[in-house]
Amino acid sequence: MHQVDFINGKTRVFGIVGDPIEQVRSPEMVTWEFHQRQHNAVMIPIHIAQNDFDDALPDIMRMRNLDGLIFTIPFKVKAMGLAQTLGPQASIVGAINAIKHQSNGDWCGEIFDGLGCVEAFKRRGIALKDKRIQLIGLGGAGSAICVAVAQERPSLMRLFDLNERSTAQMLKLVKQISPQTVVEVGPPCCDGVDVLMNASPVGMLSDARLPLSVATLNKDLVVFDAIVMPENTPLLTLAQHCGCEVVRGREMMLGQISKLVDYFLAP
Amino acid sequence: MHQVDFINGKTRVFGIVGDPIEQVRSPEMVTWEFHQRQHNAVMIPIHIAQNDFDDALPDIMRMRNLDGLIFTIPFKVKAMGLAQTLGPQASIVGAINAIKHQSNGDWCGEIFDGLGCVEAFKRRGIALKDKRIQLIGLGGAGSAICVAVAQERPSLMRLFDLNERSTAQMLKLVKQISPQTVVEVGPPCCDGVDVLMNASPVGMLSDARLPLSVATLNKDLVVFDAIVMPENTPLLTLAQHCGCEVVRGREMMLGQISKLVDYFLAP
Repeated sequence: MHQVDFINGKTRVFGIVGDPIEQVRSPEMVTWEFHQRQHNAVMIPIHIAQNDFDDALPDIMRMRNLDGLIFTIPFKVKAMGLAQTLGPQASIVGAINAIKHQSNGDWCGEIFDGLGCVEAFKRRGIALKDKRIQLIGLGGAGSAICVAVAQERPSLMRLFDLNERSTAQMLKLVKQISPQTVVEVGPPCCDGVDVLMNASPVGMLSDARLPLSVATLNKDLVVFDAIVMPENTPLLTLAQHCGCEVVRGREMMLGQISKLVDYFLAP
Repeated sequence: MHQVDFINGKTRVFGIVGDPIEQVRSPEMVTWEFHQRQHNAVMIPIHIAQNDFDDALPDIMRMRNLDGLIFTIPFKVKAMGLAQTLGPQASIVGAINAIKHQSNGDWCGEIFDGLGCVEAFKRRGIALKDKRIQLIGLGGAGSAICVAVAQERPSLMRLFDLNERSTAQMLKLVKQISPQTVVEVGPPCCDGVDVLMNASPVGMLSDARLPLSVATLNKDLVVFDAIVMPENTPLLTLAQHCGCEVVRGREMMLGQISKLVDYFLAP
């Protein structure tokens, strides 16, 4: 028939905006999720130079068959300016990584890093409620993870980030979200902790460091690392060596895609 | 693996711009052609409202992974303003239906209706050189077909369009392109003709008319109709009934896509 079956004139378009763009995984993964749900849509890579973002994005958003965008490096902060309203998670975190065209014409911003992380734990059957959690890293993804984890009402959250201002902000936020959670701030350690979470960049790519000073880990600890590349970070390698259950960055990414597509396809 | 295999961060993006957009066939057909040639690219539908075209297009064209656009109703005329240079066919016809991002940053416009028509005849093994041709309709597609057919150096071209100015322009142009071709203007008829071509809209959709007054056709006549919907126009139905060889609008479309992708992928 001289035609492919995955795109046509009725296909709804979504995009991931970044610079560079070739390394992004969302086009193949989010499009897969659309197809799983029998939704005629694709997510395309949109490569915009940093200097072009402010002029180009509002006009790209005039495409009437464009229903949503996600933002990656270096546009996560600038993206905020494109949203007329914020979803519940973005309102608390104060940052977005996606916008959706609403039926009233407004673009609504939302953030999915934290929801994706919690979804990954749910898919493993691990409840975070009443757990004692050490979270390392409170940057873009880390602060979203901190908020989503706090919403699960753990019994203890220990927070660490090199940026003391971020740490103080998150301390306050966790107390507001979950008043019954004990919140502590200080150098990361695993004593009296059920779940160790790394949301810092330590261990990414060829970085051989651990995000905290330990020689061994208790085998009952569940260890999560938000890093996707490499799949086995130094932290996760140590955790597996010590017999711990590990939750990988890839699982968070899949959880995030699922939550993102829920959002994009909601009426 | 939770991912599709037809789109990723490295995928080059092409688009068809129109309003409305849902009826276009290029996304599935041009993307198929890219894939046949092992080129990692998709053609997406781009729905732009008429009032948004002038503002939106230059900014959409800032997408660094966007390599080309084609234009359909109602943007075929406006598209001309987006091209900094014109390809050889567009220079003669004075219209474009596609633009391509060149390595020097310029966008070059070209038109493929005529080349697609000639390609359809080539694929059937029918040479137009030294043939006697009656062409009906010298509008957007018709004038491009007229130029491309003249370039094949037929022995005779008889031209007809309700618009006398278009007819006079094309008469002049055919004489320039192929000085040895006899060019005539007048009401369409099939006497002394080898190939009858309809590029007028007569016979489109539910229009039951023939583009010329005939009750029967000589079985040696080759009959072409540029109309895609319906596949069997009143003219082609009559031609088949009379035992003529017919060349369909769909074949021209496939020829056009092939020539278009040649152009898009040329260095």
